[in-house]
Order: sequence, then structure tokens, then C-alpha cells
Amino acid sequence: MRRADRAVGEIEAWEFVCKGEYGVLSLSDGKIPYGVPLNYCLIDKDIYFHCAHEGRKIDIMKNNPLISFCVVKRARILPDKFSTAYESVIVEGVVCEVAEKEKRDALVGLIKKYSYDYYENGLKYIESMLEQTSVFKITVKNISGKSRR
Amino acid sequence: MRRADRAVGEIEAWEFVCKGEYGVLSLSDGKIPYGVPLNYCLIDKDIYFHCAHEGRKIDIMKNNPLISFCVVKRARILPDKFSTAYESVIVEGVVCEVAEKEKRDALVGLIKKYSYDYYENGLKYIESMLEQTSVFKITVKNISGKSRR
Repeated sequence: MRRADRAVGEIEAWEFVCKGEYGVLSLSDGKIPYGVPLNYCLIDKDIYFHCAHEGRKIDIMKNNPLISFCVVKRARILPDKFSTAYESVIVEGVVCEVAEKEKRDALVGLIKKYSYDYYENGLKYIESMLEQTSVFKITVKNISGKSRR
Repeated sequence: MRRADRAVGEIEAWEFVCKGEYGVLSLSDGKIPYGVPLNYCLIDKDIYFHCAHEGRKIDIMKNNPLISFCVVKRARILPDKFSTAYESVIVEGVVCEVAEKEKRDALVGLIKKYSYDYYENGLKYIESMLEQTSVFKITVKNISGKSRR
């Protein structure tokens, strides 16, 4: 990171990821980058997301599991400073598909994060969607956070 | 795009980019993806952003000008639907550094977008920062928008 004065510590960076609403997953398809927004949840220090069984994202991840994942917690534009107050995290990691208990736990994690008040229905929804859903885990190799307040 | 039912037309996709607050630029450093959030402005159908003269982003772009740029306009989580209402755009393009009038015009575009009420001071700010700032243009090769309402 160029601006060391804006770096945040690792614990704070994890807090941003924990609280983040969504992230953008960046993939490399040979030399062609592809970035796509995702809902996700954090379990211990692994990041989980789900998607359908097919699509460009899955095709790329099968060939190249290296990923970058960016979470932005936008505070506010500072028009008079010609700048923006923000908190952001960039994660580097490796992605792999998960199955069985880990897959189910991740889907429960997503329900808890995004649909906390509909937990019981969420569990039924998981069962109904389980066969049509793939779940991936990002194992984090590096995390760096940045903020300007 | 897998879910054709959620695709939006090209004009609407450009509107999302026009109104978007920030985007995530995805780059490929060999096989290693790197995604980083950016402020940007749109002039005609080119996307401009600025940064310092050095850093990981610039190093990668020098070697590989292919980019993906993702703008998310987040509406709201739909907890009872186990889903999210959103509008997002993914742009594929090529990035190049710009200079002289085009560089200055892009910086003015950023002031107009983010600091409209401080325009006069913004022009002075541009002059004071011009030497230390690089400006890049994304030439858009493909744009696709998606929404769930």
C-alpha cells in the first residue's frame, strides 16, 4: 500500500469484512480480469459465497482459483476536501468449492447475515435450493485495510 | 449473463455508470487478480479516474491494460426473499493514461461529480495537484447491466 498513513491494522480490516454488506470478487481469466459483486458471509476467517452451478464466474474459478476480494464501507463524499471518507479492505486468497456440512453451514451463515428475522424460513429455503446451489470458500492469504476518516 | 431475466438494456446500464458513486477496478497481474475501489467520472462514454504516479495498480496496468470495472448501486436487502434488490454494471475495457487537455478535462469532470459546490476551489486544487496526479481513461469494449427490483 502506497499511503501507509491510511493503512488500518489487521483486526480492524477483519471488522470491515465482517460488517461489509457485499464485496466485489475479482478473477483472472488468463489475462482478462473479471470483477463481480457478491453477497458473502464470514465464518471464522473464511469468506463464503454462493452461486448457481454454471456461469462465467465458475468457469474462471475452475481454471484459476486465485482471487482478489474487495469490500468497501463507504462513509461519505467530502466535497470541500476533494476526497471521500471511506473504509475499504482488499483480500487476496484462493477459492474452492465446498460441500456437505461446510456448504450447509455457509448457507446458514448467509441467512443469519442477511435474513436474520426469517431464520426458520431461511432454513427451509436452504433445503429447497441446496441442489441448485454451489458454495465457495475464500481462504484468505493476505488482508489489507485502508481508511480515510 | 446467466439470468437473462435480470439483464438491463445498454442505455440503462450507462445510466447506472453515470449515477454510480464509485466502482471497483479489476486488473490481472499475470494470473493474479487485483480489485481496487475508485472514484470515477464519465465523459461521453469514457470512464476516467485518477491516482498517484506509482503503486500496484499502475504497475499492473502498464503490463496489462485489460480491465473489468464494476459499479454497484445497492438498493436494499430483501430479507424475507433471501435476496437483495440491486442494480449493477460490469464493464470490460482497455485502460490508458491520458495527458494535457484530456487529463485536465477528466479532473474537472471529477470535481463536477464529487465537489460540485466547490467548483472554483476545485479548479485551483487541480492546478496544485496536476504534476503529482496520473489520469487514466477506460475505453469501454462491453457493458452489461443487471438488476433485481
